[in-house]
Amino acid sequence: MKWIVWIALSSVSVPAMAATSAAELNINTLWVVMAAALVFFMQAGFALLESGMSRAKNAVNVMMKNYMDVCLGSLIFWLVGYGLMFGENFTGFFGASHFALSSTTSVEAESWDYTVLLFQTMFAATAVTICSGAMAERTKYDAYLIATCVITAFIYPVFGSWVWGGMYGGTGWLAKLGFIDFAGSTVVHSVGAWCALAGIIVLGARTGRFDRTSGAARSIPGHNLSLVALGGFILWLGWFGFNGGSTLAANAEIGLIVLNTQLAAAAGATGALLFSRMSKRPVLLTSTINGSIAGLVGITAGCASMTPEFAALTGLIAGAISVYGAGWLERRRLDDVVGAIPVHGFAGAWGTLAAGLFLKDNMFDPSQIAVQLVGIFSAFFWAFPLSLILFFLIDRLIGLRASTQHEQQGLDFTEHDEVGYPEFHQNVTYHREL
Amino acid sequence: MKWIVWIALSSVSVPAMAATSAAELNINTLWVVMAAALVFFMQAGFALLESGMSRAKNAVNVMMKNYMDVCLGSLIFWLVGYGLMFGENFTGFFGASHFALSSTTSVEAESWDYTVLLFQTMFAATAVTICSGAMAERTKYDAYLIATCVITAFIYPVFGSWVWGGMYGGTGWLAKLGFIDFAGSTVVHSVGAWCALAGIIVLGARTGRFDRTSGAARSIPGHNLSLVALGGFILWLGWFGFNGGSTLAANAEIGLIVLNTQLAAAAGATGALLFSRMSKRPVLLTSTINGSIAGLVGITAGCASMTPEFAALTGLIAGAISVYGAGWLERRRLDDVVGAIPVHGFAGAWGTLAAGLFLKDNMFDPSQIAVQLVGIFSAFFWAFPLSLILFFLIDRLIGLRASTQHEQQGLDFTEHDEVGYPEFHQNVTYHREL
Amino acid sequence: MKWIVWIALSSVSVPAMAATSAAELNINTLWVVMAAALVFFMQAGFALLESGMSRAKNAVNVMMKNYMDVCLGSLIFWLVGYGLMFGENFTGFFGASHFALSSTTSVEAESWDYTVLLFQTMFAATAVTICSGAMAERTKYDAYLIATCVITAFIYPVFGSWVWGGMYGGTGWLAKLGFIDFAGSTVVHSVGAWCALAGIIVLGARTGRFDRTSGAARSIPGHNLSLVALGGFILWLGWFGFNGGSTLAANAEIGLIVLNTQLAAAAGATGALLFSRMSKRPVLLTSTINGSIAGLVGITAGCASMTPEFAALTGLIAGAISVYGAGWLERRRLDDVVGAIPVHGFAGAWGTLAAGLFLKDNMFDPSQIAVQLVGIFSAFFWAFPLSLILFFLIDRLIGLRASTQHEQQGLDFTEHDEVGYPEFHQNVTYHREL
Repeated sequence: MKWIVWIALSSVSVPAMAATSAAELNINTLWVVMAAALVFFMQAGFALLESGMSRAKNAVNVMMKNYMDVCLGSLIFWLVGYGLMFGENFTGFFGASHFALSSTTSVEAESWDYTVLLFQTMFAATAVTICSGAMAERTKYDAYLIATCVITAFIYPVFGSWVWGGMYGGTGWLAKLGFIDFAGSTVVHSVGAWCALAGIIVLGARTGRFDRTSGAARSIPGHNLSLVALGGFILWLGWFGFNGGSTLAANAEIGLIVLNTQLAAAAGATGALLFSRMSKRPVLLTSTINGSIAGLVGITAGCASMTPEFAALTGLIAGAISVYGAGWLERRRLDDVVGAIPVHGFAGAWGTLAAGLFLKDNMFDPSQIAVQLVGIFSAFFWAFPLSLILFFLIDRLIGLRASTQHEQQGLDFTEHDEVGYPEFHQNVTYHREL
Repeated sequence: MKWIVWIALSSVSVPAMAATSAAELNINTLWVVMAAALVFFMQAGFALLESGMSRAKNAVNVMMKNYMDVCLGSLIFWLVGYGLMFGENFTGFFGASHFALSSTTSVEAESWDYTVLLFQTMFAATAVTICSGAMAERTKYDAYLIATCVITAFIYPVFGSWVWGGMYGGTGWLAKLGFIDFAGSTVVHSVGAWCALAGIIVLGARTGRFDRTSGAARSIPGHNLSLVALGGFILWLGWFGFNGGSTLAANAEIGLIVLNTQLAAAAGATGALLFSRMSKRPVLLTSTINGSIAGLVGITAGCASMTPEFAALTGLIAGAISVYGAGWLERRRLDDVVGAIPVHGFAGAWGTLAAGLFLKDNMFDPSQIAVQLVGIFSAFFWAFPLSLILFFLIDRLIGLRASTQHEQQGLDFTEHDEVGYPEFHQNVTYHREL
Repeated sequence: MKWIVWIALSSVSVPAMAATSAAELNINTLWVVMAAALVFFMQAGFALLESGMSRAKNAVNVMMKNYMDVCLGSLIFWLVGYGLMFGENFTGFFGASHFALSSTTSVEAESWDYTVLLFQTMFAATAVTICSGAMAERTKYDAYLIATCVITAFIYPVFGSWVWGGMYGGTGWLAKLGFIDFAGSTVVHSVGAWCALAGIIVLGARTGRFDRTSGAARSIPGHNLSLVALGGFILWLGWFGFNGGSTLAANAEIGLIVLNTQLAAAAGATGALLFSRMSKRPVLLTSTINGSIAGLVGITAGCASMTPEFAALTGLIAGAISVYGAGWLERRRLDDVVGAIPVHGFAGAWGTLAAGLFLKDNMFDPSQIAVQLVGIFSAFFWAFPLSLILFFLIDRLIGLRASTQHEQQGLDFTEHDEVGYPEFHQNVTYHREL
């Protein structure tokens, strides 16, 4: 019986693994590692999407933030975050063991812990990366990296422990209530988006984004929409691992989960397209791709507990929300460069609600809906005020925002001593100066 | 015995799944989902390849067409196409059940159906995407999307039912004859290419592609060959899932299938290179990459039933065909922007023939060769006239081709209110006007 | 018992496969094929990284070299290299069977051989590709392809047979000593880098890289750092297959191996960042990404036999080495365009040493350390002199280096009749000439 690995299961929303044989442990390991690889690749998707939607003078800066938040995030989540999120959790409010995987006992458990840590590291990196897009083009590099570390070490894992915690004993308080968030519409995406919202409030808008006198919004187009589209494809691909891997087991449920993921993404882009047409907005590539990502974010909570029809509906509405939400923020003079907050925050909240509304075999159950709302608001009231304090403190201590002069020159030149496209962009600039 | 899932097998060319245990169902699900993810990623490959071979002023348009055909295609194939292709098929000419997976009975069968639908959705999206490349830079966006929907809902799945149909009862008429097309050289690639051929005939060539008076061909170079090369790598990668996943089971055959895929792709590029040198053509990056894709298309029919030696030979000849075929089309004043027709159509027909010629243990069997020819010609005589009518009707009703003025300004600006590279390309244009 | 496949295991560093059932053969096949797909994708990562770090005028040339070395390499490794590396190896110095998989006996063994050949083909292609980056922007296309063929057919597989050889009988002499190189820090990466070192010595530096009179180094910035970052993400992703797949079996060890890979990569970038700051160098995107790749190269030897703490330490030091090593080469007027030699050669040697130093349960064992040093130096003294002769002969017979005029015009135009960005780059050049 020595291969038996038992993990406490408190609700459908807690990732579960119960391998009863070496063969099952092997195949579960294989699946979760492959899924982790796909989720890792989402980092490239985010980097391309965010870089492509920024101006060429900040391309290196955006890439570097995305690259380094995976690097620092991986190290910190291993040392601190994983223990806080998944360690023994008897209060229901935080975990307190398995820092740097220190408390593991048997060889078999250890082997599985490595795999779970790997997978969860990719999730933590995803949550954090959401900030980089919203805050692009005006945030100091060092300040961003410090915020990254605090979010990965503390803000994200503590909330996570409320929902997914207790893998080594105990249960999170939201899990006890029966909160459904299978792969993290709220745990990962909304939490990341509320941090991003705090960030852009403290930062303020980019110079020129809103007219100084009238306050009217002015579009600042991204420098490379081919990279944006490639980023969208890569994110979509990675999401198969994000949702499918959250089974933490290679079982036949994966078919439904990934099919729902596919249909919600497809419906999300379609929803964005239809909503744009109906509201007389231009049908932009950027909003189409954001629509599909909103569909993906939306289905993340309920992908394992909905039928395909409702997965498509959830995605369709999520896509429309992402277009509407982008305008909503803009009217409030909030400058979210890539639309991260509508896509991950608003669509994530919607998806978490939808997971309650459209629960297979128990549709529109008021008590489930109430629990979902508790989870959605807990995430906001945990992540938003804390990250507001965090960004405010960083701003006071070392400065969060780059100087206007640096912003105008571009952060690539001023922060990294490198430009992204030395042969193209500089020459063009040169001619423009003539 | 409740886990037993039986699917009718009528010939070697029908994808088969017969899981006899929960463990087998799990691992088969895992494999087919991973393979589906790889095939999904091919969409990014096509988008990059087609966009990179087009001019910068159409980059957004090409990307949008590739992105939206996956989105609409996924929804429509789920609702309509899957049932027509794989549903109960007692006539041998079309399926008629399982629309939106409606007729599924047991939990186990349902779970597997989700997985198969996911995988086959990616195939349908591939078939349709082939058109977008050939018809790039001059097709109206809405008209293209309408054509996409009809091909995914009707033209592709009906032909598919002839070869792979009858998963839930019955057998396609080509399958009954013993037609071999393991992963779709004909079913997916040639069908897509014959639709594309009809499209470019109705559309006509891009303005400036052929000299008005002499008719001589003029090259219109693509705007970003780095993206083309990346697209080539991604397509090659995705093909491991395309061919390997077509086992619909995680078995040891996959080794041979994927090795054959690798060797045929390598030989395809080599064949294109050698043929270009021998015929005094320049050895272009675009034709090298198209050569490898032609090798991949070529081996798709026979990858499970050939030895590696013949896989390499099939790929080598397919690569040469793609170079020769591109010239053949050009001499007929047919403007295929990315070479989709020689690569998917001509090399697909060759590969389907090769699957008969080089059948392991039964080489050069005249009756098998005759059956292969029947399949090849059926595909042409089904897909080409129908899509000719389709494109003709679309042209009459809403117009298929963008106006010459829009073509000159670029479809990004005129159809999408966005340009792909606002900081680079517009400035360059601006200077050019001086 | 007919499914039993026995492969001689001589030490922990020899990839092992012993499937005792059809189910195990199936899942092992699935895992190794997926891993091979990931390693294949590394080719795209190398191509993007190398192309992005080169000038736009050589983008096509760099892409073509990367694309064609996979193509030719796959065919040659199948025909020649695999047999030399893995065939019956009774002397311990080379294999001599299984050329073109000719000697395989049973159906089961054959099926597994296909899978192993596929996986190892991707490794051979990786070793060779390392040269293309170091030698970029000045090497003749044909000369490069000839060198590729010789390295894949002879230099790489013979050294490989010393460490991993004897899959079909016999043992390599380094394996007999107990040399640890799990996935190829030395076998693949250092061997590739020593060939590259020979290449750049014979070639000489690019025109303008070092001042003619003072000899001072001048930076030649790459044309597209977004592609470099994307390349870095793809290489990191592919490495999960590179290291994880080297188990050649789907077992629970993969969790530790891939976690170590992740932590070492993260620590590698962090090491490069810290070392750059401490030594007052600018913190470049290029050196950050090279740092993470150095971390990956470094952990490749010991990823299966180290705890995560030491994996992170190995990566951290490897990252610092890559920054230091790049300066060391530059001071010696050696022009390595992408930093391939510090990243793959120096960090690979360090990682091979670290695999001995930090061996779990047997740390700092002097005899193991001595064996590691023997392996490290054998690689250098085999690959460097032989490839020096190879490049010297190629230079004498057909010329290795492009003419200065071709170098100035760019190899895309002079060797391929194509330019990478006809709408952007040529116009810019045109304006520059005004």
